[in-house]
Amino acid sequence: MHTGQPGKTAIDHCRAIAQFTDEPGVITRTFLSPAMRDCLAYLTAWAQRIGMQDIHVDAAGNFHAVRTGAGAERLIIGSHLDTVPNAGAFDGVLGVVLGMMLAETAAPGCTLEVVGFSEEEGVRFQRPFIGSTAFVHGLNDEFLNLVDSSGITVGEAITAFGLDANAAREPQIQSADAYLEFHIEQGPVLESLALPIALVDAIAGQSRATVEFVGHANHAGTTPMNLRQDAFCAAAEWALLAEKTAQEEAGLVATVGSVKVSPDAVNIVPGSAKLSLDLRHARDSIRLNAFEELLNAGHQIAARRQVEFRCIPRVNQKAVPMNAELTAAFSSLHRMTSGAGHDAMIVASRIPSAMIFLRSPGGLSHHPDENVLPEDVEAALAAGHAFIENFK
Amino acid sequence: MHTGQPGKTAIDHCRAIAQFTDEPGVITRTFLSPAMRDCLAYLTAWAQRIGMQDIHVDAAGNFHAVRTGAGAERLIIGSHLDTVPNAGAFDGVLGVVLGMMLAETAAPGCTLEVVGFSEEEGVRFQRPFIGSTAFVHGLNDEFLNLVDSSGITVGEAITAFGLDANAAREPQIQSADAYLEFHIEQGPVLESLALPIALVDAIAGQSRATVEFVGHANHAGTTPMNLRQDAFCAAAEWALLAEKTAQEEAGLVATVGSVKVSPDAVNIVPGSAKLSLDLRHARDSIRLNAFEELLNAGHQIAARRQVEFRCIPRVNQKAVPMNAELTAAFSSLHRMTSGAGHDAMIVASRIPSAMIFLRSPGGLSHHPDENVLPEDVEAALAAGHAFIENFK
Repeated sequence: MHTGQPGKTAIDHCRAIAQFTDEPGVITRTFLSPAMRDCLAYLTAWAQRIGMQDIHVDAAGNFHAVRTGAGAERLIIGSHLDTVPNAGAFDGVLGVVLGMMLAETAAPGCTLEVVGFSEEEGVRFQRPFIGSTAFVHGLNDEFLNLVDSSGITVGEAITAFGLDANAAREPQIQSADAYLEFHIEQGPVLESLALPIALVDAIAGQSRATVEFVGHANHAGTTPMNLRQDAFCAAAEWALLAEKTAQEEAGLVATVGSVKVSPDAVNIVPGSAKLSLDLRHARDSIRLNAFEELLNAGHQIAARRQVEFRCIPRVNQKAVPMNAELTAAFSSLHRMTSGAGHDAMIVASRIPSAMIFLRSPGGLSHHPDENVLPEDVEAALAAGHAFIENFK
Repeated sequence: MHTGQPGKTAIDHCRAIAQFTDEPGVITRTFLSPAMRDCLAYLTAWAQRIGMQDIHVDAAGNFHAVRTGAGAERLIIGSHLDTVPNAGAFDGVLGVVLGMMLAETAAPGCTLEVVGFSEEEGVRFQRPFIGSTAFVHGLNDEFLNLVDSSGITVGEAITAFGLDANAAREPQIQSADAYLEFHIEQGPVLESLALPIALVDAIAGQSRATVEFVGHANHAGTTPMNLRQDAFCAAAEWALLAEKTAQEEAGLVATVGSVKVSPDAVNIVPGSAKLSLDLRHARDSIRLNAFEELLNAGHQIAARRQVEFRCIPRVNQKAVPMNAELTAAFSSLHRMTSGAGHDAMIVASRIPSAMIFLRSPGGLSHHPDENVLPEDVEAALAAGHAFIENFK
């Protein structure tokens, strides 16, 4: 597949790997599945073909291959190999494929290690980032004892795959000077800006909560408006305020994605309305202030409407800034925040990390129509080449 | 049970009838069930005890008993005998019990027919008002062929109860000069006004519709606020407008009781939001104008937010005014609109009808704690006595 059109070549590799699926007809490749074994074999053969060293699958199922360089620096390039169910061909895999292509063609210099993480999406064990966590921290009992829908633990799955679950307790990482991850944006920003790639300056922090307004379920015909305690109207007011709060603060996103009213009947005034809130920003103080504001507003709306307001915080995850020195090397690129989590978030706790987004046509991801443009892939490769050349 | 405290007596009768239930431990009495047979036997024995005539169960299972008066006028007093599942003891039954007590104690004069309708709540066949429809219009094939959850038709259920399904095709009504129905309010208005009873001037007309906003499902983290087409935020805005529209128009009630968002996930911007609308008012023109306004507003909100708006009308039921001449006889009473449907709505198409509401403590109905106060029952009986005395 090595042609004079590296964008097309990378896409062809991604599409070839997409053939390895747990479920024929769609792309679904989960942690330690037979399809994942085929995917690892594909990468192993490729690494052998281009003369890489130390090609192996680690105790947590992560793929590794090294291009030894003359210089003292060691750069890890990676992303994940697993997918969501009925996925596209690029989310994760593209970052590993670009690592391989850079290992094959980049100017000599630093040592380059390509890593393909075995688990990022959280599909099989309902817990994301198992691969990069194993890589950076090792898997503790909490991870090893997670159970999939068949009752199999992570530890058992590792053993069944022919790997050493006990060894997965140890971090698999060797010392390295930097980690670089290429990933599709999975959002509409670069397309709206007509840009092929961007530098990620931070992975947004995230607050999640379940809020509930509790009023009184009443007969829709016999209860005059002034005698109602309509939980859904209170919730609607609050959801619009969450939207407005985010609209007024650059970079803040607020989403009410899940809504349940009770009793949920045409002719009954809702007695309860439960909403989810998902709030993200690159700066934790802005996110936490907005969360606090929305909490206060919930109580105020509830008091005015004579209903109750409850809030159960679910997630409070700090933002992870990318390494300032590394990102300075990409100063010509547009900068943006990643609203989604990525392996770089885990790796950044141990190694200076940087991340490059590639434009997602239609903003689409986690969907069979997920795509990437060859020219954008070439822009990413060019950025990678330039970075490696200057990585000293 | 005939004591010097007619309020308590009526309540005791209702509680005695509440023992006849399809489901031990709760009050559930559905159309043509064994419990309904026991209820009919109770009323038959009572009617015999107080010397009523023409005591019979008609072809649709409705109870009838007549107190023949000296005058030429014929007044029907009735309500329904069936209940919702896990009901209270008063919804429907109280109106029949009050009819019996008036037949027993009212001043001689007009002929009084007490009717207990066999079906009003729509539980067994998912269709309300079967009893009063049979009484007033007879049951056509559409009604007779309705099927319950066991696959039994109305016609078969009538036959199985020992009645003549074919005879149920004919209206069971005899000519009458007026119909009077006592019923608990099932709402909070009389309690909020500190009034025991009120005259119903009309049964509200009703519009129901399903509206849907369709936007784009997007990643909650990667989609900036300005690039969203959030279906739920559009729906929330519209629901608050429905609330405001009703608050600004006396007597109008608007309810968004059912809400479904899709995909309904914490981390996905809703791509679709479906709402139910229930709109009621005593004047059809006000209701229809409000409906039209909300339809237009839906399109405007959708256009501004770049989402789609759809509306599927489900119900457009006209208001049923009570008879002006009859209601004039109750001029001392507070007047109110019934937001819920009642048998009087069906009967009014054939016989001048009037309706009296009794205060519902806590506005509660369709609930085991549904209640009525003895003094309010006595106020209703007094109004009934006065009406009968003057009914010429």
